[in-house]
Amino acid sequence: MGVQTWVHPALELESGGVLREAPIAFQTWGVLNAAADNAVVVCHALTGNTDVADWWGPLLGPGKLLDTSRYFVVCANVLGSPYGSVAPSTIHPATGQPYGASFPRITLRDTVRAHRALLEALGVQQIRFAIGGSMGGMQVLEWGAFRGFVQALVPIAVGASHSAWCLGWSEAQRQAIYADPDWQGGHYPSDRPPRAGLAAARMVAMLTYRTAASYAERFGRRQQEGRFSVASYLHYQGRKLVDRFDARCYVTLTHQMDTHDLLRGRSEEDLPAQPTLVIGIDTDGLYPLAEQRALAALLPKAALRILHAPQGHDAFLIAFDQLAALITPWMLTQTNRRTRSAA
Amino acid sequence: MGVQTWVHPALELESGGVLREAPIAFQTWGVLNAAADNAVVVCHALTGNTDVADWWGPLLGPGKLLDTSRYFVVCANVLGSPYGSVAPSTIHPATGQPYGASFPRITLRDTVRAHRALLEALGVQQIRFAIGGSMGGMQVLEWGAFRGFVQALVPIAVGASHSAWCLGWSEAQRQAIYADPDWQGGHYPSDRPPRAGLAAARMVAMLTYRTAASYAERFGRRQQEGRFSVASYLHYQGRKLVDRFDARCYVTLTHQMDTHDLLRGRSEEDLPAQPTLVIGIDTDGLYPLAEQRALAALLPKAALRILHAPQGHDAFLIAFDQLAALITPWMLTQTNRRTRSAA
Repeated sequence: MGVQTWVHPALELESGGVLREAPIAFQTWGVLNAAADNAVVVCHALTGNTDVADWWGPLLGPGKLLDTSRYFVVCANVLGSPYGSVAPSTIHPATGQPYGASFPRITLRDTVRAHRALLEALGVQQIRFAIGGSMGGMQVLEWGAFRGFVQALVPIAVGASHSAWCLGWSEAQRQAIYADPDWQGGHYPSDRPPRAGLAAARMVAMLTYRTAASYAERFGRRQQEGRFSVASYLHYQGRKLVDRFDARCYVTLTHQMDTHDLLRGRSEEDLPAQPTLVIGIDTDGLYPLAEQRALAALLPKAALRILHAPQGHDAFLIAFDQLAALITPWMLTQTNRRTRSAA
Repeated sequence: MGVQTWVHPALELESGGVLREAPIAFQTWGVLNAAADNAVVVCHALTGNTDVADWWGPLLGPGKLLDTSRYFVVCANVLGSPYGSVAPSTIHPATGQPYGASFPRITLRDTVRAHRALLEALGVQQIRFAIGGSMGGMQVLEWGAFRGFVQALVPIAVGASHSAWCLGWSEAQRQAIYADPDWQGGHYPSDRPPRAGLAAARMVAMLTYRTAASYAERFGRRQQEGRFSVASYLHYQGRKLVDRFDARCYVTLTHQMDTHDLLRGRSEEDLPAQPTLVIGIDTDGLYPLAEQRALAALLPKAALRILHAPQGHDAFLIAFDQLAALITPWMLTQTNRRTRSAA
């Protein structure tokens, strides 16, 4: 089944605003059971979309980690993304014009509350687990706020809050976009987006997602057509994002990531109390292992598993076998524990 | 003594071009002895200048690592820098106009050969050691090509060549500058430089120079005036560079760093054979420790010392005491060895 859309009648935001008739795009796999308690929520990352089969394909299917023969798997698009949920390019129902630069500041909690409304509209009573990496991991942690609704959490390659380091990378990337004259304060026409600025931001991001060692192995100092191969690769990645993504969405989404702070307005007693499997990547240069250690120590029922991979942060989109091997046994333990305590 | 200038009559470049009447800015401390064999060459980094007293002050003076009572300390400005050596802003002697966008591509070897010519013009017969970090370390390694002239090398926080990782960061930063309309392909008037683009590039660079942990400790998620403190800090650093540096120079210099490759056109037999002390910083995210290990293994007479500091790459401009403690004993060993073999 392809991308579907549910319309939230009136989405109240943390900022105080309301988005009326707000579309929420989503995809599902598998079937919701009679008890409506077999849902699994998969949360996508910054420039990701609802097509889990595309970016986590090897983890999705009968007998896989995201077992479509047992679970009703749902992935919803984050607010502000160009992949179908309400975003700067969406038509404002009152004005008939796109929100454009007037699109409000969105928090990660806004996104997760909107997705919760979707799950309820789909009739879901219980979520077995929420899982995702990077910005997806941030959403997973916020799903933890709904204790009765969500039974377990698997946040990957993320910390309890967006660090100064990551806030800095967000800001530097936005400034590269703002330096492009076609940005026009966000008021650009859709046929003339700030291509150069968004491409430069993406190049920066693509470096932060990997490691020095992985770049060395892949590119070294090889040249092609008078340019270093690594430069050609970064240009290609920049163009590729520009062709599929919107600069205003990118800015909105990086601001949304910046709001990630599990303890904001909460005491430690309010922290997610569900069984939680924190996955860290040993070479992650963006969300270093220290953050997952701290997160696992912070949460009352958390275990930590370490994914060993040379690719850095991006490994959560690459090391499928290892992800499955780390998560599946833990998930079985949780299921058995629930079965025993129910017996 | 302040900045002096020596004019190179005709500087031949690796690219085949010639820069005529090319100024080379430099500063000196201490006195050249009668044998003219007590020179020490200090090499500055990307946005650095000849004022060693300013950026390595605690290492410079009587009895210090750069002992002005024993050594004739010389620091020359790299080609393409806005601090006095020939650069895009220099007046072309034939046209009476600044080189501007027509400034040729410079290699690191061009810079070091130009500096060698300066040292010879100053009457120097022997250089006791060449020392510097980052782009300064690259120059140190190229000084090693002059075996009879340079007795020892101390490259800090650098590798044998500019890695794919660093090439990538160079390119991403240049693209941020190019995204600024005021860049104008490098043909901008001096009163309207690409401020936003250069500032964005600097923000990226300032992140790569430090570490996630150091940013976390310094800024956390603190806010001031509705903005994250880390964002304010990066903006301040961006403005500060824009006020003191030229975008064309920045582009030229990053291209120059990209040329760093000790083995380019050389066999291993041609590698620097001088006693060499390679210093690596344990938290360096730009030139990771693996590169200094490889460098020390590559050079025939190299030892490796590790500087432990939380600040990442920038530690070579911060951890003065540790630098002195690592280098001084090694330097004494070298001196004693030379004295013994001379006896």
